Amino acid sequence: MTRSELFAQIKSKSSYLCVGLDTDIQKIPAHLRSESDPIFAFNRAIIEATHHYAVAYKPNLAFYEAMGPRGWESLQKTLEIIPKECFTIADAKRGDIGNTSGLYARAFFDKEASGLDFDSVTVAPYMGEDSVKPFLNFPGKWVILLALTSNAGSSDFQRLEVKNAEAIHSRALFEQVLMTSQNWGNRDQLMYVVGATQAHQLQRIRELVPEHFLLVPGVGAQGGSLEEVSKYGMNRQCGLLVNSSRAIIYASSGTDFAERAAVEARLVQQEMAKYLNEYLN
Amino acid sequence: MTRSELFAQIKSKSSYLCVGLDTDIQKIPAHLRSESDPIFAFNRAIIEATHHYAVAYKPNLAFYEAMGPRGWESLQKTLEIIPKECFTIADAKRGDIGNTSGLYARAFFDKEASGLDFDSVTVAPYMGEDSVKPFLNFPGKWVILLALTSNAGSSDFQRLEVKNAEAIHSRALFEQVLMTSQNWGNRDQLMYVVGATQAHQLQRIRELVPEHFLLVPGVGAQGGSLEEVSKYGMNRQCGLLVNSSRAIIYASSGTDFAERAAVEARLVQQEMAKYLNEYLN
Repeated sequence: MTRSELFAQIKSKSSYLCVGLDTDIQKIPAHLRSESDPIFAFNRAIIEATHHYAVAYKPNLAFYEAMGPRGWESLQKTLEIIPKECFTIADAKRGDIGNTSGLYARAFFDKEASGLDFDSVTVAPYMGEDSVKPFLNFPGKWVILLALTSNAGSSDFQRLEVKNAEAIHSRALFEQVLMTSQNWGNRDQLMYVVGATQAHQLQRIRELVPEHFLLVPGVGAQGGSLEEVSKYGMNRQCGLLVNSSRAIIYASSGTDFAERAAVEARLVQQEMAKYLNEYLN
Repeated sequence: MTRSELFAQIKSKSSYLCVGLDTDIQKIPAHLRSESDPIFAFNRAIIEATHHYAVAYKPNLAFYEAMGPRGWESLQKTLEIIPKECFTIADAKRGDIGNTSGLYARAFFDKEASGLDFDSVTVAPYMGEDSVKPFLNFPGKWVILLALTSNAGSSDFQRLEVKNAEAIHSRALFEQVLMTSQNWGNRDQLMYVVGATQAHQLQRIRELVPEHFLLVPGVGAQGGSLEEVSKYGMNRQCGLLVNSSRAIIYASSGTDFAERAAVEARLVQQEMAKYLNEYLN
């Protein structure tokens, strides 16, 4: 999917909501457990209920891998039924030496090889350029590179100050990741995971990457402010995908789970419509 | 597997060789492609031919994921037939927020959930403590944390100097990873990936982590010196697992591939026996 196709979808749905499919067999409604593939049955109902309000879906690979080969089958079937206009993200946080990253790229992008055909994959930056490049070599596919994550451990390394000969001011490691990686791919193939919800952080990030899309986790159940993110993170082509997982998919644990997911997704979408109106120039 | 069990095996085989199962359908001998599961048939022959000379096996997850669910099945079957005394490494380079890392841990350590029961998994440090801890919560299992990798991209971030209030001298990021992560787990559950083959690098690393096991890639096809690694990296309990993948498993592309793999593995083992004799105190 191209950047302008993604932006067109954002405008047509008045939404930049990404629904995280963190589908846990222990958390889905009990009545689904008798289905032949409960994970797929849950995902299908969630997608049918929310796809008017969401522009992207993000299965979290760990939830599927933890179930072994049948988890991968549930994932394949889920990907098949996501409407074609929606942007799909394999939240896999991969990254390895060049030839190995090339195989991970095939795992997520090459349907003939693996049965999966995502639009994008999340990638960890620690191993540097040759660990990321193979994902960028797939035409029309996207890398979503981890920059600043929203967990407590992000302060262990991501926020350390690094020395840099060119820079006048010292930079945090995650800022260096934003700077260095812009030489690896362009804004039409590279996005960033940015778990920032505070105004000053987002302003600083937008100085470094004004044009790129940002995938922002941690709004919703994790408590970030959608208004701050939208006000300080939005650019001329929106440039935001804001994820919500648990607050939507586990809105109810009863037989009304899909309807309740739709209600929650619609509430977020309506708030987003307001911010698109206010902050999109 | 405990550290003393691993060391006992190293002594009894006079080897610290890890064989990397980077099994590529396009590189295995043509005569295996008619097998119902060519990847498993190849791995079985390699393991049968090399297990007297190797103390560990390291399947590279990307090679299996690139084949979708049937790749995971080949991996499960491979893991089943690795002799119980051998240490098994899921080279997966995972790492995510706490609850997600917990599910990745189940994927690799919890046989009931996923069908896999590895002794260890490689983990990327970028997301910090809570991304690593869930793997350490599995009794008897190991985390092998990426510190310094052997690829060109390791200079992009791993070798950047970081500022640290406590340190008198500045440190590279990978050195900070070695220091910080020692608070997360002990030498009986934590190893490090160290793609260092030069004497001064290994000496510096051994100052920081004298007791931990190091998994060293890049000896063999990638050209590192086994003697340097052994001389400067070995500690009182050996403390080294040295990996070789392609130089062993693809020693021949003919019907003699397993015999030739055994010959190559035995050559490495004999060299290791010499270094254990010379450098193990």
